[in-house]
Amino acid sequence: MSEFDFIRDHLAPLAGPEGLGLLDDAAVLTPPAGHDLVLTKDTMVEGVHFPKGAWGADTAERLIRTNLSDLAAKGAEPLGYLLSLAFPRDMNPAYRAAFAKGLESAQAIFPPLMLWGGDTVITDGPMVVSATLIGTVPHGAMLTRSGATVGDDIWISGHIGDSAMGLKHVLSQRIDPPPTGADIWLWEEAYLRPEPRLLLRGILREHATACADVSDGLLADAAHIGRASGVSLSITFGHVPLSNATQRWVFGQEDVVAAKAALLSAGDDYELVFTAPQSARGHLQRAKIQGGSTTALPLTRIGRVEAGKAGAILRGKDGESMDIEAAGYKHF
Amino acid sequence: MSEFDFIRDHLAPLAGPEGLGLLDDAAVLTPPAGHDLVLTKDTMVEGVHFPKGAWGADTAERLIRTNLSDLAAKGAEPLGYLLSLAFPRDMNPAYRAAFAKGLESAQAIFPPLMLWGGDTVITDGPMVVSATLIGTVPHGAMLTRSGATVGDDIWISGHIGDSAMGLKHVLSQRIDPPPTGADIWLWEEAYLRPEPRLLLRGILREHATACADVSDGLLADAAHIGRASGVSLSITFGHVPLSNATQRWVFGQEDVVAAKAALLSAGDDYELVFTAPQSARGHLQRAKIQGGSTTALPLTRIGRVEAGKAGAILRGKDGESMDIEAAGYKHF
Repeated sequence: MSEFDFIRDHLAPLAGPEGLGLLDDAAVLTPPAGHDLVLTKDTMVEGVHFPKGAWGADTAERLIRTNLSDLAAKGAEPLGYLLSLAFPRDMNPAYRAAFAKGLESAQAIFPPLMLWGGDTVITDGPMVVSATLIGTVPHGAMLTRSGATVGDDIWISGHIGDSAMGLKHVLSQRIDPPPTGADIWLWEEAYLRPEPRLLLRGILREHATACADVSDGLLADAAHIGRASGVSLSITFGHVPLSNATQRWVFGQEDVVAAKAALLSAGDDYELVFTAPQSARGHLQRAKIQGGSTTALPLTRIGRVEAGKAGAILRGKDGESMDIEAAGYKHF
Repeated sequence: MSEFDFIRDHLAPLAGPEGLGLLDDAAVLTPPAGHDLVLTKDTMVEGVHFPKGAWGADTAERLIRTNLSDLAAKGAEPLGYLLSLAFPRDMNPAYRAAFAKGLESAQAIFPPLMLWGGDTVITDGPMVVSATLIGTVPHGAMLTRSGATVGDDIWISGHIGDSAMGLKHVLSQRIDPPPTGADIWLWEEAYLRPEPRLLLRGILREHATACADVSDGLLADAAHIGRASGVSLSITFGHVPLSNATQRWVFGQEDVVAAKAALLSAGDDYELVFTAPQSARGHLQRAKIQGGSTTALPLTRIGRVEAGKAGAILRGKDGESMDIEAAGYKHF
């Protein structure tokens, strides 16, 4: 299968009108009036961001879902995306077809998200895939990391740690005590198919002062907000919500606190951590946001924005500062 | 040097206001009123698109210049770009600094082109770098490949083949007869620092019916126009212009025709091939477009759009069809 055949047979059916049938070198967009465009770009490397040989649909879905999460953190609506695909030379064509299937599944998350273009090349090394997503917000309404104010509450969507447990499972690491099949399913879904919290965009644009998605780890991403805003995000360790499955695992460990703390630094959660004034507390507590497919997405208050060293800290049950590694994942 | 240090010290100084200081996960753009946005994306892999170990400024410049060429072919003005950089794990930090210097040089081609964001990761394989460039055209004015009409003239900017000669030199291949130092300089510049023909955008938007930049090879890219337009681009072999340096080399070969034909399929020229009605001939012949630094950029008429099999053909001196490989470079 040549590059041209792959594009024609597998990618062109995913293209929107902006992509000109993928027959051209460029995409063209007439921007919606009164709106700003939001652009994000994430890259995934085989063996670094996904397991070796995971060349198919799962990786494609994860690439698009994690980029959609970046748009969700901005309060944006996705419009389209461009891809850079460096496929290994010896990759079976069936994987390429599967990769396109994964893109198709991911597009279905937010219709009419469409492919607009990109570039497909070969490499003699590991697979490297990158996506540029383009979204839109009403003019001036994009959320940033820099608006957190002393006194704001800190909120998190969903649960932290399920994705880290899913990665353990995908890497065939021993998980003890042994989880149920339902636990494994939940963890694996959280890792492979993180749900971009796009449905929060209305409530975020209305109430949030700063927002980030949790990719590097809850504490690390909260620290990004703290540094960009010049404030300290003080997170109460005991208030960070875990799913039932992950609670069962944490409370089965020798050192329960260390086990939970590790999950707070693990990353890949793709939940949204955000700050909001206390006056919004009632609105946020009453919000019933549809999360994944069946359950309402919980929003949980986990701390308070304080003056002090710009960044983020964890506090224990008596308000004491906890000394755990807050750096999150560094790529090099 | 951590990812964060590299971004802060070397990339943030290249960022425009849309990039939010590269402290955020996203860029935000308020699109210019009455304009469309044009988006292009090209990826380069070490050992495939540039020589092994060429991790520094040259590769960064070439990445941005070749992407700018895509915008030039659309008649667009560049606004900004996002980067995906997968750096080898053992890459010396000095190369990363040099890479940023190359970006800075490339930005100077078209002020105020600025960096808006991206992602920097490590890889255990060859370096893979990708850029998404965003440009703008007046609403509805973007050039495509699909507007060529039977009877149109075919034009090319500059010369074909210098870049292929430059690659021979960069790869230390034997070049016979031995070129002068000035020839080598011209070829090397054509390969390493191709000049995106952005200054043609006014004349193209006024006169051209279809346009492409020559990256895969003159014949292959002309065929892209032919297929997208449903016409046959008939190119007269003898009319395709070569620089004086490249003419000297071609006429020093045993089989002069084969030598020139190979250059027409070689690619990486980043000149613009375009079609225009015969009524524009006078305007285009009189156009004095500033090319690189010192010389006016020639526009040369090299053929005619015909009915017939959609694609491109080469014709010899008596109008006969020449049977040379027109497929151009395929990535896999």
